[in-house]
Amino acid sequence: MPIEITFLGTGGSWPSSERNVLSIGLRLDGQVVLFDCGEGTQRQLMRSNLSFMAITKVFISHFHGDHFLGLAGMMQSMGLNDREEELQIFGPPGTIRSLKNLSKTGYFGLTFPVVVKEMEDGDEVRFDRYTVRAFNVDHSVPTLGFVLQEDERPGRFDRPRAEELGVPPGPLFKRLHEGEDVEVDGRVVTSDMVVGPKRPGLKIVYSGDTRPTEALAKAAVDADALIHEATMMEELEEKAHRYGHSTAVDAARLAADSDVRHLFLVHLSPRYRDPEPMLTEARSVFENTSIPDDLDEFTLNYRDQMTSNSS
Amino acid sequence: MPIEITFLGTGGSWPSSERNVLSIGLRLDGQVVLFDCGEGTQRQLMRSNLSFMAITKVFISHFHGDHFLGLAGMMQSMGLNDREEELQIFGPPGTIRSLKNLSKTGYFGLTFPVVVKEMEDGDEVRFDRYTVRAFNVDHSVPTLGFVLQEDERPGRFDRPRAEELGVPPGPLFKRLHEGEDVEVDGRVVTSDMVVGPKRPGLKIVYSGDTRPTEALAKAAVDADALIHEATMMEELEEKAHRYGHSTAVDAARLAADSDVRHLFLVHLSPRYRDPEPMLTEARSVFENTSIPDDLDEFTLNYRDQMTSNSS
Repeated sequence: MPIEITFLGTGGSWPSSERNVLSIGLRLDGQVVLFDCGEGTQRQLMRSNLSFMAITKVFISHFHGDHFLGLAGMMQSMGLNDREEELQIFGPPGTIRSLKNLSKTGYFGLTFPVVVKEMEDGDEVRFDRYTVRAFNVDHSVPTLGFVLQEDERPGRFDRPRAEELGVPPGPLFKRLHEGEDVEVDGRVVTSDMVVGPKRPGLKIVYSGDTRPTEALAKAAVDADALIHEATMMEELEEKAHRYGHSTAVDAARLAADSDVRHLFLVHLSPRYRDPEPMLTEARSVFENTSIPDDLDEFTLNYRDQMTSNSS
Repeated sequence: MPIEITFLGTGGSWPSSERNVLSIGLRLDGQVVLFDCGEGTQRQLMRSNLSFMAITKVFISHFHGDHFLGLAGMMQSMGLNDREEELQIFGPPGTIRSLKNLSKTGYFGLTFPVVVKEMEDGDEVRFDRYTVRAFNVDHSVPTLGFVLQEDERPGRFDRPRAEELGVPPGPLFKRLHEGEDVEVDGRVVTSDMVVGPKRPGLKIVYSGDTRPTEALAKAAVDADALIHEATMMEELEEKAHRYGHSTAVDAARLAADSDVRHLFLVHLSPRYRDPEPMLTEARSVFENTSIPDDLDEFTLNYRDQMTSNSS
């Protein structure tokens, strides 16, 4: 399945007219998964092509306001729209306490179950066709990055070979492709005779907020998309690192070293109204870099397919 | 002083593409006062002509998310922008506990003092040139409406009479106008000889969320501006009242009965994308009704002066 990435909010620290604070929406398998949920995310969702009622999982990188303060309002609005489906929220240690305190700030009438799970470095949660793994990054407060890894896909089906083996086109092809062995005229044709080695699923990595760290470089290896914070430009490198952030060039270096396919820079400091100079810096290190605007969409296809984006 | 009203967010319950949730900014005396601070208010401030650093006081009507969830992010951003000035927050009983819990949801490093004061029915807080009085309205949870009453202004200065009494134009005029008695050629000229009776200051009333209630009608008498919730139209009157809300016609009736000058309807349900039918309904009862869009501004002048608005 291709995965559609919607950049709901791409700014860092506080919102500007141009960029809301952080939230990334992934549409996969008919569901929507969020990485972070800064203040105002529900309104960005209203403006996007994603349905906020379709959100099933939210992964919070850390508890700075620009990454989680949109949770309460979004959940309240889901309730006002009669949601019944469970919502799952994942985050670093402390998430349960934070959300408990959030629920005590006002009158929230939830109409649906909310399941909160804290994740530590290396923890993995398994869903129907993908897993999400958390890893520690290096920020000023406990912060997770996330790897969303789609399950392996079946290998290529060798149609000429199947026909050669006398398999009639139709349902038997499908069964073979899915790994079953079948009988044809009293002979057994095994799946591995006509299906190549399994192919990797898509891999999307989200950095959270972090200064450059080996853990992220390792997690990002061969990622189809790396969504990386780039709070500042090179001239403010020392400041960026001091506050637990990265520059665009840091992110580009990491993308190059980790053989990433697409690098997306987010969490730009509000000081940068024009992203072009930052983009130029990053592209001098890693060509396939984008700085999405809020509400830009990107369809991530498999390596053997076309990739398209729209805004 | 004229008071400038900026309608930062005019929608009810949850945000839509057109309207953010509730917040009203008043600029008076170089400061900004907010009535309510729904999620995303700081971003609306960035888009408006108000400076979010100039906010000195926030009055929260009640603790439904669409009225207060913008507080934490706004305060965090003030801190990130090195605010040192005190911020005062007023709200109904429970406000202190709510804000304490809010401060425990994440990592907030405040750089400035925050003073929180709970107000009950009839409580008044006095500022340099105005007072704000709270009164109970009738919603599903404890909710306050607010009356902002500017101090009385000096009466009209009777310049011809002052000249007749031999007062030379200049500083003595000013002293007389401000209430002082002065000596001219050995005679005393008293202020009340040349200054008319004091004139009322501006009065702005904010309803909070409420079904029609006598308390609001009384508070709104002779208001220069009544900012009233109008969640639904007349056909949904029963539903509006059941949930503790008003219709546009309810608000218009109250404005007419209370001799209000300007009625502004806010907190429109997201179901109404086009406000025109609601406006027509309200104007059939009270002509001087407006339904501001987000970020509309209105300058409220004294009755004896012109009133203008811009968007």
